[in-house]
This record gives sequence, C-alpha cells and structure tokens, in this order.
Amino acid sequence: MNVERLAREAKEASRVLAKASTARKNRALRAMGKALRRRSGAVLRANAAEVAAASGRSAAFVDRLTLTPARLEGVARALEDVASLPDPVGTTRPFARRPNGLVIDRMRVPLGVVAVIYESRPGVTADAVGLCLKSGNAAILRGGKEAVRSNAAIAAALREGLKAAGLPPASVGFVDDPDRAAVKRLLRLDSLIDLVIPRGGPALTRAVREESLIPVLAHDKGLCHTYIDAKADLAMAGKVAFNAKAERPGVCNAMETLLVHRAVAGRFLPAMARQYAKAGVELRGCQETRRILKGVKAATATDWDTEYLDLILSVKVVGSLDEAVAHIARHGSGLAECIVTKDPKAAARFLREVDAGAVYHNASTRFTDGGEFGLGAEMGISTQKLHARGPVALEGLTCEKFVVSGTGQVRASR
Amino acid sequence: MNVERLAREAKEASRVLAKASTARKNRALRAMGKALRRRSGAVLRANAAEVAAASGRSAAFVDRLTLTPARLEGVARALEDVASLPDPVGTTRPFARRPNGLVIDRMRVPLGVVAVIYESRPGVTADAVGLCLKSGNAAILRGGKEAVRSNAAIAAALREGLKAAGLPPASVGFVDDPDRAAVKRLLRLDSLIDLVIPRGGPALTRAVREESLIPVLAHDKGLCHTYIDAKADLAMAGKVAFNAKAERPGVCNAMETLLVHRAVAGRFLPAMARQYAKAGVELRGCQETRRILKGVKAATATDWDTEYLDLILSVKVVGSLDEAVAHIARHGSGLAECIVTKDPKAAARFLREVDAGAVYHNASTRFTDGGEFGLGAEMGISTQKLHARGPVALEGLTCEKFVVSGTGQVRASR
Repeated sequence: MNVERLAREAKEASRVLAKASTARKNRALRAMGKALRRRSGAVLRANAAEVAAASGRSAAFVDRLTLTPARLEGVARALEDVASLPDPVGTTRPFARRPNGLVIDRMRVPLGVVAVIYESRPGVTADAVGLCLKSGNAAILRGGKEAVRSNAAIAAALREGLKAAGLPPASVGFVDDPDRAAVKRLLRLDSLIDLVIPRGGPALTRAVREESLIPVLAHDKGLCHTYIDAKADLAMAGKVAFNAKAERPGVCNAMETLLVHRAVAGRFLPAMARQYAKAGVELRGCQETRRILKGVKAATATDWDTEYLDLILSVKVVGSLDEAVAHIARHGSGLAECIVTKDPKAAARFLREVDAGAVYHNASTRFTDGGEFGLGAEMGISTQKLHARGPVALEGLTCEKFVVSGTGQVRASR
Repeated sequence: MNVERLAREAKEASRVLAKASTARKNRALRAMGKALRRRSGAVLRANAAEVAAASGRSAAFVDRLTLTPARLEGVARALEDVASLPDPVGTTRPFARRPNGLVIDRMRVPLGVVAVIYESRPGVTADAVGLCLKSGNAAILRGGKEAVRSNAAIAAALREGLKAAGLPPASVGFVDDPDRAAVKRLLRLDSLIDLVIPRGGPALTRAVREESLIPVLAHDKGLCHTYIDAKADLAMAGKVAFNAKAERPGVCNAMETLLVHRAVAGRFLPAMARQYAKAGVELRGCQETRRILKGVKAATATDWDTEYLDLILSVKVVGSLDEAVAHIARHGSGLAECIVTKDPKAAARFLREVDAGAVYHNASTRFTDGGEFGLGAEMGISTQKLHARGPVALEGLTCEKFVVSGTGQVRASR
C-alpha cells in the first residue's frame, strides 16, 4: 500500500481510537498478546529466514534481528503490561476560573498519528504499537528492511488483536516498501501524521530531522557525566561511578566522562582506577589525571565529545563545581548528569544549573529509563527540550487541550 | 554580525539567564521599559523614515509598521506587565518515589535560545524579548526588512535595559542582515537554537517549517466553527454566534463556519441572518441553508476550508452532533471550536471528541487569547499538538527536567 493511503487510513482510525474507552483499548492490547502467541510459529519462521539471510552481518546486528520463543513471549507480555498502565487520555485538570465566569480546564488527548522509524529490531514493532494504542494514537511503522517479513508477521497479529476488540485494523499501518523514497514521502505528510519518532543510531535520527516536515521526537546520543564533588562521600562516589560506567557500558545512560574535584582527586582516583582496571575499563585522562594515575593514556580533544558505548572512560580533574558545570554544558548530550556530594548547596546548584533531561544527586545515571522511573514502559529517551524530555512513555504521546465552559459569554468590543 | 556568531553568543548568554534570579530578570524588564521611553525619540524617528519609505504598501501593512508615541508607551508598559507575572523557572513538582528510595521531581527550566521570525511589526520585537527574558531564554530576532531600523533602535534600548540589570546584552540577538539567506542559515543552527517561532502569515510559517532543522512552534491558521446543537438555548446561540463572527472578523479566533442542527435551523437561521445582515456579514450556505434563507449565495467546496478573516461566513445545516464533529475534523484548523447546547451529554461528547487547542461550551471562540485565559501575555497561539497548544506564554517557553535524588543507589546487574 502506498504511504499516502496508509497515512490517510491511519488518520481516520485515529479518530476512532481517540474516543475509544480504556476498557476497549485494554481488550485490544490483551488480544494482541494472545494473537502473537497464537501466530508465534509463523513469526518465528519468518524471522529465522531473515536471520539466515543476515549471516554476513555483525553479531550485534544479528542479535537485534533475532526473535526467540522467549523474546516473543516477552513482547506479548509487554503488551499486557501496557494494558495495566493508567490511561492518560481524557484526564482533566483545572486551569483557571476567569473573572467573567469562564471555567478553563486542560484535558489530555492523543496526538493522532505517530510514525515510528526504526532499525531491524522486530521487538520494537509491538512495543511501539502498545504505547501508541494505549495513548489513543494510530501508529505507522517503518522498520529496517532486513526485518520486513518478521515485522509483517507481527503486524498481522497486532491487527488481529485490534479486530477482536472492535477497533480499526488501520490503527497499525505498516510500511513494507523497502525503498528509502517511501520514508521520504512519509516524512512530508505533516497534514496526516502528527509526530515522528526515529529509534536508532545518530545517522538515522539526523536523516529524519533533515527530511521531516513532521515534528520529530528523538534521542540524539547519551554523553553522560558523573561529577565527584570536593565534599563527596568517596565510598559512595566509587560505587556510583563504577555502576554508571561498568554495569552495562553499551547503553545511552552509561557514563562516558568522570569529573573529579581537585581536592579529592588524589585520594579518589587511585582506588577507583584499580576497580575499573579489574572490570577491564580503559581510562583516558587529562594532564592532571595522568600525574595521579601513571601510565594512563592522554584524552584527546575528541574524547570529551565521544559516546564510547564501551569499556572506555574519559577522566578530568576540575577545580570547582563551576568548571564541572561548564564542561557538561559544553560536552554533555542532555541525557543524564550526576553529582556526588554531601553538600546540599553544591547539589542544589548542580541540579538547577545543569541542563539535561535527568539530573542526579548521589545516584547512578543508569536509572534513566522509563521502567526505573515508574512509567511502566518507554518509547525511548528524548534528549530534546520540546514536548517531552527524558524517558518518553504514554504521557509523551499525548498533549493537552484547553476546555472552556461558559454560560453564554461573549467578548466585549474594544 | 553573522548569524552563527550571534547564535553562539546568545547560547552563552542563555546559560547566564537560566540561573538569573527572578528579581534580576524583573529589574531588566523594567529597565528595558525605561530605556524605551528614554530613547523614544530615536525609535520614532527611525520608524517615521521607514513608514515614509513604505508609502506604496497596503494600509494594513503601513498600520502594522507604524509606531506612535501611544503604541511605544504600550510596548514599554507590556514589558513592565511581564515583570509582574509569576516566574515559571525553577518551580518543582513531585513526580515519583521509587521502591529503591529514589525521589524524582520535575523542575521547570528555560529552553535556551528562542528565535522569533516575524514580519514588519516592530511592536513584536519588545513583546517577544519580554516573554523570552522572563522565562530565562535568550532571544534572536529577525523582523521584516521594512522595519529593520525601527527594530534596531528598539533592540538597542532593550540591551541597555539588560546592561542596567547586569545581564549579558547578547541575550537579545538581532539579525539585521536583510538577505533571506541569513534566515536560511539561522534555521540550520539546531545545535545553538532550541526553538523557532514564526509569527506571520501561512506563507512565512510554511517556509520556516520547510527550511528549519530547529523545532518550530507555530500557528498555521484559524478556521473556527460554532455548532448550534438541537438543544441549544437559541437566544444564547445567537449572541455567541454573532460575537464569534462579527466582533472582530480579522483575527484567527473569529468563527468562519456556522454549523446548525437541522432540528433548530428553521427557527434559528432567519433571525440570525437578519442580525448578520445588519452588521454587513455576507453568508454562503449549503443547500439546506439556502432553502431556509432565500437569496443566500451557495458555498463552494473551497469555502469550507477558507479562513476569510473578513465579514463572510459559511453556514451549514447538519443532521447530528456526529456530523458536526466530522465536519470539524475535516475542515477545522485546530485553533478553537464551540458547541452551544443545554444538553450536558452533547457538550461532554463535543468537548472530548473535537480535537483543537481550545474547545468551548456556550462561549465565544473569540476568548482564545493569552490575556483572556489569564496568561498575562502571549507569544502567539499554537495550532500544533507538540509541546504547547493554544495560547503560548511563559510556560510554553520552558520545559521540565527530571531531578533525581538518592543516597548512593546503583542499578542492579541483570
């Protein structure tokens, strides 16, 4: 089906979804989970063929592409979990009572149609649809071409779930045209699609931003810092800094640069370096770090701007909280930033002045995640400032309208 | 100055503004008002020269370009009014307490740098700066080339106000290069500028959307409907429908299409038509309207999509609330929509199902305005769904970050 027709049908479907009851949406989500289990044979066969065809690709690529019975069960269960989350649609909060008697409230409503453009990770297909459906939005999906058959099999199951609950199957649009030109056309349909979410590497995000007339919600990269203040509890600092780097280095909320106040660097860094060495973490230090830690490689100018996603860490000694904040302002990606300190004034300044989706005092940046924040699920983590910042879940897929109730008020002539 | 340097300096200034106290920002706003009064001679002379040069342009164009002593005093007073509004920056609300003891709040913070691109209306210059400054943002201004000298004189006064309060003059960047290429370059600076707001006609907005890599906040057009339900109080309906069309037809929140339920059309339309005729409103009706109102011109297909901004009104008879809602979904611009009815169920359905920035029950759409909503001022009215919808004032120029406070929590290994 061509993308224009897909988008037009999704728009029509979105009007039905916007007024669907919570119970009906939940029924659809549970029916989707069931349909995925029922069709698991077909999904896994389609996926096995695509995994075989991807034999020349990197291990990480093949891993992301691969569905197993356990992974598919996880996807089905995730749909059921979304059913149990509170529905943001229709919730209303008071805004103002005006002197002329008008009562103004704000009501949360769906965005309409959300397009998700992602790489060859078929698990994303159902996750994205679950969040879109619960928040009353139609979804248009465009996954990587290497997973087109897996995705088609999953999408068929999802539509079966929609039908079972009496919701329009066009609520899930699936772009099966592997041509890049189809995406380009999709990104021009700003009268039909309300939001586009690229989920993938920086190159994908950049390409979407360049080509899209539709507003974009995206995660650029995760370049997170942990700052060990002069008044830090050094035992706590060691624990937090180790976790932020080494527990899972390949994710966006892992730390890439450690900033240490000069007053504690001599005491803190040697023990920390031994801990990192045991975990296989390579350090790259500023001059002062290298005076304290002999044999550490020098960090180059590009290191401070590099998201390693690996067991590598840049280390810089700073003379003050201000220097730490300025370094983060210059090099941070606005995802998550942390201060470790016992000084409440230093903490308050850091939390106020550092500009990021999440700022931490005495806790690992690794908590930056929809599940850890209690959102139940996430569509991704936004590093932008407009609309939704930090972990994005159901609320980020809605907006608020003003609801004005009167008794016949009219505006006076000037 | 070239736009790249302007934007870089504005970004630096925005870091100072983000942590400036409310008192200091208010001092700057009041000093700006004073400086505008002190320099009013220079501003009015620059403006008089530009008004003279625009002698061939339309009366509306010249009116928008013209500053008078009274208008300039209004601009100065508006800056002082913004000083008296509450400061959204730094306000914090609780978000979650997690089982692991993490306490998560959301803190409101400035966006950073806001670019405003507008037509030859020098009054906008100070309005935009006032709202940006109060919300802790640096502003980059690009007005129409016919007002470049007026704007430069105003910008000089505004910078004097900043200096008087000890804030960086680069907080107000002013693009004086009249070349369109300068705007194109500006719109690519997404690493320095956080938001762009076009203020002008649909052509300007479209051009900005096409060219911008920076997120855009805009008002597309205002095509507002008023729906007179079968159970409307017809006296109230007449008052509301008259006000929405005739009080000030040239503005975006005026009604362009009147929808009337068939059950009341025969009683409602004749009296309404007489009232409109007295005010010089031309009607364009559907077939059924024309059977009730003899001699009314037929509405064509394009009429339902036309923002007249004039004393012209499309009138359509509908058979049900659903038909009214469907008509609005197809033709409305998402600015403001109204139902007049005594039936609370019909009202609730309309308010829930109609997708617009503001939905009204028994009141004129003409109230859609920052001042009328109690926001104190407005940057414009957003017809988009992302980030800010409806009248946009201080809150729309900020975003929320997550603030996470712990006691050394780290994330458990999976």
